[in-house]
Amino acid sequence: MIKDSYTLSATEALAAMAAGRLTSVALVQSCLDRIKSTDEAIKAWAFLDPDAALAQAAECDRLRKAGMALGPLHGIPVGLKDIIDTAKMPTQRGTPIFAGRETDNVARLVEHLRESGAVIMGKTVTTELAFVHANETRNPHNANYSPGGSSSGSAAAVAAFHVPLAIGTQTNGSVIRPASFCGTFGFKPTRGVISRTGVLQTSVSLDQVGCFGRTLADTALLTDAIAGYDQRDPASFARPRPDMSVGVAADVPVPPDLVWFELPFNDRLSEAALTGLEAVLDILGPQVTRMQPAETLSNLVAVQARIHEYEICQHQAEVFDQHWDQISDTLKPVITRGRQITHTEYEDALDVKVSAEAFFADFFVEFDGIIAPSAAGEAPLFGNGTGDPIFCTLWTLAGLPCVTLPLLVGETDLPIGVQLIGPAEKDDRLLRTARWLQTELVQAAGS
Amino acid sequence: MIKDSYTLSATEALAAMAAGRLTSVALVQSCLDRIKSTDEAIKAWAFLDPDAALAQAAECDRLRKAGMALGPLHGIPVGLKDIIDTAKMPTQRGTPIFAGRETDNVARLVEHLRESGAVIMGKTVTTELAFVHANETRNPHNANYSPGGSSSGSAAAVAAFHVPLAIGTQTNGSVIRPASFCGTFGFKPTRGVISRTGVLQTSVSLDQVGCFGRTLADTALLTDAIAGYDQRDPASFARPRPDMSVGVAADVPVPPDLVWFELPFNDRLSEAALTGLEAVLDILGPQVTRMQPAETLSNLVAVQARIHEYEICQHQAEVFDQHWDQISDTLKPVITRGRQITHTEYEDALDVKVSAEAFFADFFVEFDGIIAPSAAGEAPLFGNGTGDPIFCTLWTLAGLPCVTLPLLVGETDLPIGVQLIGPAEKDDRLLRTARWLQTELVQAAGS
Repeated sequence: MIKDSYTLSATEALAAMAAGRLTSVALVQSCLDRIKSTDEAIKAWAFLDPDAALAQAAECDRLRKAGMALGPLHGIPVGLKDIIDTAKMPTQRGTPIFAGRETDNVARLVEHLRESGAVIMGKTVTTELAFVHANETRNPHNANYSPGGSSSGSAAAVAAFHVPLAIGTQTNGSVIRPASFCGTFGFKPTRGVISRTGVLQTSVSLDQVGCFGRTLADTALLTDAIAGYDQRDPASFARPRPDMSVGVAADVPVPPDLVWFELPFNDRLSEAALTGLEAVLDILGPQVTRMQPAETLSNLVAVQARIHEYEICQHQAEVFDQHWDQISDTLKPVITRGRQITHTEYEDALDVKVSAEAFFADFFVEFDGIIAPSAAGEAPLFGNGTGDPIFCTLWTLAGLPCVTLPLLVGETDLPIGVQLIGPAEKDDRLLRTARWLQTELVQAAGS
Repeated sequence: MIKDSYTLSATEALAAMAAGRLTSVALVQSCLDRIKSTDEAIKAWAFLDPDAALAQAAECDRLRKAGMALGPLHGIPVGLKDIIDTAKMPTQRGTPIFAGRETDNVARLVEHLRESGAVIMGKTVTTELAFVHANETRNPHNANYSPGGSSSGSAAAVAAFHVPLAIGTQTNGSVIRPASFCGTFGFKPTRGVISRTGVLQTSVSLDQVGCFGRTLADTALLTDAIAGYDQRDPASFARPRPDMSVGVAADVPVPPDLVWFELPFNDRLSEAALTGLEAVLDILGPQVTRMQPAETLSNLVAVQARIHEYEICQHQAEVFDQHWDQISDTLKPVITRGRQITHTEYEDALDVKVSAEAFFADFFVEFDGIIAPSAAGEAPLFGNGTGDPIFCTLWTLAGLPCVTLPLLVGETDLPIGVQLIGPAEKDDRLLRTARWLQTELVQAAGS
């Protein structure tokens, strides 16, 4: 049996299980041991039931031994952000308001996980209602720093080798940013690829599900397993989804044409982030076109905030009305602001969002992808918030697929990600471009 | 462009589309032309909107041309039994009670069809409430005969080359029998492989979804596309499903060991069916063990009837109470009988069902499959009911996967199927065995 199997990627663990060199029980036990020895400092988990996880793993092993059907994630432990409904586990949404909350329903994506043979490991810490107020999770690279948010625990758990895979959500930058801070891969596919039924609704127009892994291929594998059309989700589309695993394994036919936008808020980048990104652009040379975008593009940041803040006040009106005293002081002013947005302002913002989507649809006729920062730099100190999401805002608003690759290192030896953004519903092409980028940079580093 | 593409199997059509020799619009138009020229006699369709089908096909072609994601059934028209909820089309359930009934919800399996890129062609005729009373559909081989039921239109539409694929349901013998009568392949996977959410409930314990195609591989392809876990369906299981397409393409490692049961109701077989089946058994020689089963096995027929009749009276109580005058004289006595079954009798029957499942779980440790009649012989004359389902009852009750192969021909040149039954949740192995059987018989016929 493989020792320390918690270090394996999901793809490696699947191969080891197929070869008889690893069982799901051994893998899950190894991950549980790793959690036990490190999570006191990291605090990635909001709920963990080791016995229940081991029982699922034993059942996976039994099915394998009995020659029964195996799923694409057969026996692989997966962490779920604590806003995703999961039967037999509480879903507490990062707030005392929902402490101990249980439901018999599981999110649609959890149904997909079950039929893919995954082991539902437990629930990972989210910020309060998946919004601005941080909870207890620390950055696994240095516990004095934040892991980012709102999918704090999912990013930290994958980075800390607690699980090879975890699921988060992103309404602004809540997958890409914590992945960048924690040094994992993060992949947020096109809006509507993954159903949100059974996931806390903070913004029907913006909420999107994303995946964390320690390899690009792992994020693709997980996304394929949980993608699917769901009529109950208004963002879900009734069309075939790209095959992420095929995309990530494909070679680019020609070097892709990328764009770097000179956005006004690029001045928020830390020195290390800027230097690192410039070095990446240097290596890529003529494959990247530097572009001065129209001012309207950066105005989208305000548009995102308007939609996000207005919608959470609508969706969670009852929670805010009935439990105001249990809302954090970080969130309260955001709600107060959101409540002042008029319906007309909101509808105007939605119109701009539609224009932004149309802009990017045209844009990607000419270009394969956008290369951009994943965050302003290294993670902020713990206690100083979860970091600035602004480098994710535009793409998330437009529902574009985004991926972050842990390619850079900052002043404090904390990781910094590089983001790629691609055309809607061409997630497979984005992952192909991402693997190309990774290969180019590894080759450049080696030469 | 390929002429008369309505004759292609789904697998052939997919290959032709991938090679640029066929469009979905051309395929759907060819099928529509075929329907137009033959359905006046066959009456397979309860609802058909040619423009809507062509619009879906055009969208499939547009996605293909734009390099968007393609699904496993991309551009393939599929017929749906008229008890499966399908938005934008009525679901009338074969009774005037539900004439014009529309719903915004689609069945879970229709969600899967949409994400697989299928064209929802229309609704195929079902017997009244998917039970005993035949509707207007005729056997495509000879319009004087019944197509069988209750999935009458689905079997007839596939046999008549109206669509390469159709979906039906089976509570007793409603997929296997009409497939046998119409000369198509019919595959009813293990109970719980395909969700029944959004499908008329006639028996929560027995209702199962099945697939029709003109090749074995096509039924596997369709089943893979619509299989999946659904927490809302109590029969659905939260485990990986077998890969049907891998199973059907696999070679048997050794010739499989089959069993033929000498059941008391085998005396209902027509002479042609008996002669044909004996010839098949002769060809298979030592691969088939003839077995005299315990009497309890044939007693399961009464157990199935008790559960089926009791449950439909429970599930459809309101319909029967409020619309008694619109119920056929064929169904009325069944309901009257069902209403007299006590809850204790029903629960006893459920207990026997559990024992039967346990019996077969043990049985298949030693054997790969059961070979059995699909029906008593050729289709009955139109007007004489939809045929005797007894040759399907035992296996359906136990939730086992069943497949029928159109291997025999009867006295009136009408087709007769041969049925294979396999262990639960090893549908892939059953399909592997089925392809082996087909190959053996083709080779024997050729020599």
